[in-house]
Amino acid sequence: MTGPTRAIWQDVQRIRAEAPLIHNITNYVVMNTTADALLAVGASPVMSHAVEEVEEMVGLARTLVLNIGTLGASWIESMVKAGREARRLGVPIVLDPVGSGATSLRTTAAERLIAEVPPTIIRGNASEIRSLVHAERATRGVDSTHDSEEAVAAARALAARCDCVVSVSGTTDVIVSSETVIRIRNGHPWMPRVAGMGCTATAITGAFAAVSPSPLRAAAHAMALCGIAGEMAAERSQGPGTFQAAFLDALFLVEDSDFEQRLRMEEA
Amino acid sequence: MTGPTRAIWQDVQRIRAEAPLIHNITNYVVMNTTADALLAVGASPVMSHAVEEVEEMVGLARTLVLNIGTLGASWIESMVKAGREARRLGVPIVLDPVGSGATSLRTTAAERLIAEVPPTIIRGNASEIRSLVHAERATRGVDSTHDSEEAVAAARALAARCDCVVSVSGTTDVIVSSETVIRIRNGHPWMPRVAGMGCTATAITGAFAAVSPSPLRAAAHAMALCGIAGEMAAERSQGPGTFQAAFLDALFLVEDSDFEQRLRMEEA
Amino acid sequence: MTGPTRAIWQDVQRIRAEAPLIHNITNYVVMNTTADALLAVGASPVMSHAVEEVEEMVGLARTLVLNIGTLGASWIESMVKAGREARRLGVPIVLDPVGSGATSLRTTAAERLIAEVPPTIIRGNASEIRSLVHAERATRGVDSTHDSEEAVAAARALAARCDCVVSVSGTTDVIVSSETVIRIRNGHPWMPRVAGMGCTATAITGAFAAVSPSPLRAAAHAMALCGIAGEMAAERSQGPGTFQAAFLDALFLVEDSDFEQRLRMEEA
Repeated sequence: MTGPTRAIWQDVQRIRAEAPLIHNITNYVVMNTTADALLAVGASPVMSHAVEEVEEMVGLARTLVLNIGTLGASWIESMVKAGREARRLGVPIVLDPVGSGATSLRTTAAERLIAEVPPTIIRGNASEIRSLVHAERATRGVDSTHDSEEAVAAARALAARCDCVVSVSGTTDVIVSSETVIRIRNGHPWMPRVAGMGCTATAITGAFAAVSPSPLRAAAHAMALCGIAGEMAAERSQGPGTFQAAFLDALFLVEDSDFEQRLRMEEA
Repeated sequence: MTGPTRAIWQDVQRIRAEAPLIHNITNYVVMNTTADALLAVGASPVMSHAVEEVEEMVGLARTLVLNIGTLGASWIESMVKAGREARRLGVPIVLDPVGSGATSLRTTAAERLIAEVPPTIIRGNASEIRSLVHAERATRGVDSTHDSEEAVAAARALAARCDCVVSVSGTTDVIVSSETVIRIRNGHPWMPRVAGMGCTATAITGAFAAVSPSPLRAAAHAMALCGIAGEMAAERSQGPGTFQAAFLDALFLVEDSDFEQRLRMEEA
Repeated sequence: MTGPTRAIWQDVQRIRAEAPLIHNITNYVVMNTTADALLAVGASPVMSHAVEEVEEMVGLARTLVLNIGTLGASWIESMVKAGREARRLGVPIVLDPVGSGATSLRTTAAERLIAEVPPTIIRGNASEIRSLVHAERATRGVDSTHDSEEAVAAARALAARCDCVVSVSGTTDVIVSSETVIRIRNGHPWMPRVAGMGCTATAITGAFAAVSPSPLRAAAHAMALCGIAGEMAAERSQGPGTFQAAFLDALFLVEDSDFEQRLRMEEA
């Protein structure tokens, strides 16, 4: 087994063995599907957004995942409150700035969370990441339309500004810290045809962040797992509907040999 | 290819080519499944309900879908606000009056939306449509219990009163404008055994309304696609669970020959 | 057919014949999946939480299901209001205290509901049930970590205190009234790897409570059906993703012979 393959596989085994509790304050669209994905990979999801309980809940968790899709005003307060407690406790925070750039509410919310509860990892698509660097309206719904090298540049700028890891999904996934760029070329064209697949990658990033001391490795390993599970799922399905079920199966069934055979990761 | 088949197929191809952004203010139960269906058919869904952002979001969209299932008071305000902006911009509005007739909140909300932000297309089941004509309590949950000709009469009355297209799902789907009645006899008995299949038809109606200049055609083509995808899915599944995944596959995979072989549409 | 098998099968047939309306005030994560499960078993689900309509809605329903996952403060008020009307009308109430013990908000909410709108059946996992007996923080997310006999003791204590039936899911399901303990050893290890499978069991308990005069039988029959459908589904799936779809299929397709061959229920 190569070094990167072994490192991913160790993280997967740790998630399966430790079943870390992942506290998600996330959007309505993906609450069920990301909980399913976390369970399939071996983690224990909890979805909780009430301002009365988020601090208590994050105290039980090993990662806090903040996702601003289907945002309302009261949710931002809960995210800030949970984020502050996570910071105090040293619980890693993964932020998915869903739709940042599309509306002022979302861009402002993402910027406020970055400022007030600095995330360990920001995970989004290229449009969202760009919107946080260039302060321009670039998002078209939740799709991404930017090429890989532009994404790398935006991710590097954001990682430097926020002193965090930035993980950008796309045909090539790009995971960036202040010093390192990792590119992953796994995945399948049906993945963006499934609602919330990006949010699923974010939740799974949360699971890896719970067991890995390196946010950069956690973010990269999560994207590698998602891409490889996507490839495995596509081989067992007929379209994006059957793909979803097969993707969860693959997260549950994936073995070290799957990483050995499929991993297409480069570090620069 | 017959005229109707060609017209449907052209709309499907336009959705796949243009990937129109569909802004949904919809209920919690179906947010994920209708997003999946829109993605499978080739559209780009966004779910957004916050009063702070709905106007901005509808400005990016090509159709606004309003669905009053799991309604709360603040959501009605967002729907009105989004609807006004959609009207101002000429963005078509598709309304699904889920549960109208079952409770005062829902009937009143549906009537208010019809009055204040007149929809281009109203799409519901027979009980819901009847409740908007007869002001009687007729809904039994989200099921429909009325026969087809009664549905036609109610739909015609509502279409005339509201100057819009009315699309009624049932064993026979009925799509009505002030002058025309279209009946579609595609579909499968497992469809009402899947949560939110009506809401899915509404969302897909939104995708067709985005690419078609005719609301009547958009509504009819959407119901034809749903019914035919349902037939295709039933042939590849064992029950309502596997049916759901196969239905998404069918929306993604459907070809012109499927419409040619299966379409059972009559216009009067 | 044995007596227990016949009794379960009669209830299943009644649900399929009568399609009772089940009013759910439940959490965002499971709204879709529990609606699907209720439809698959033959019931008619409605999800409705608005304080303006819950009393009207419960007046149409044959069971009220209260589930405190993803709770917010306003939802508790709706649950109390709906619960009072259910009590007034003699509509059975099934309570799922999701996450009770994990946070004060949830434990307090569960206790308030038990006090103000005494449920007919409380259905949870062992950690949740224990938290309502011992007032200790025992829940780890939504998982259960307690053994069966401890669960029996906690369930008996809670059943005696609340004068209701208590149904505890686990490797062995335990259903308890003041006099009787029923143990069910059906099910499959993939079931806790699917989000909201416990909530699904609760919703299905609601369907049985709608047709059965005995809350104890309703609760036990629901758990037997879930366990047996889980076994059937596992034989037709490859992992927890394909399992979910096959589980819905099994709820829809299950026959008397499946109960005869598989039921592992003991009464003491």
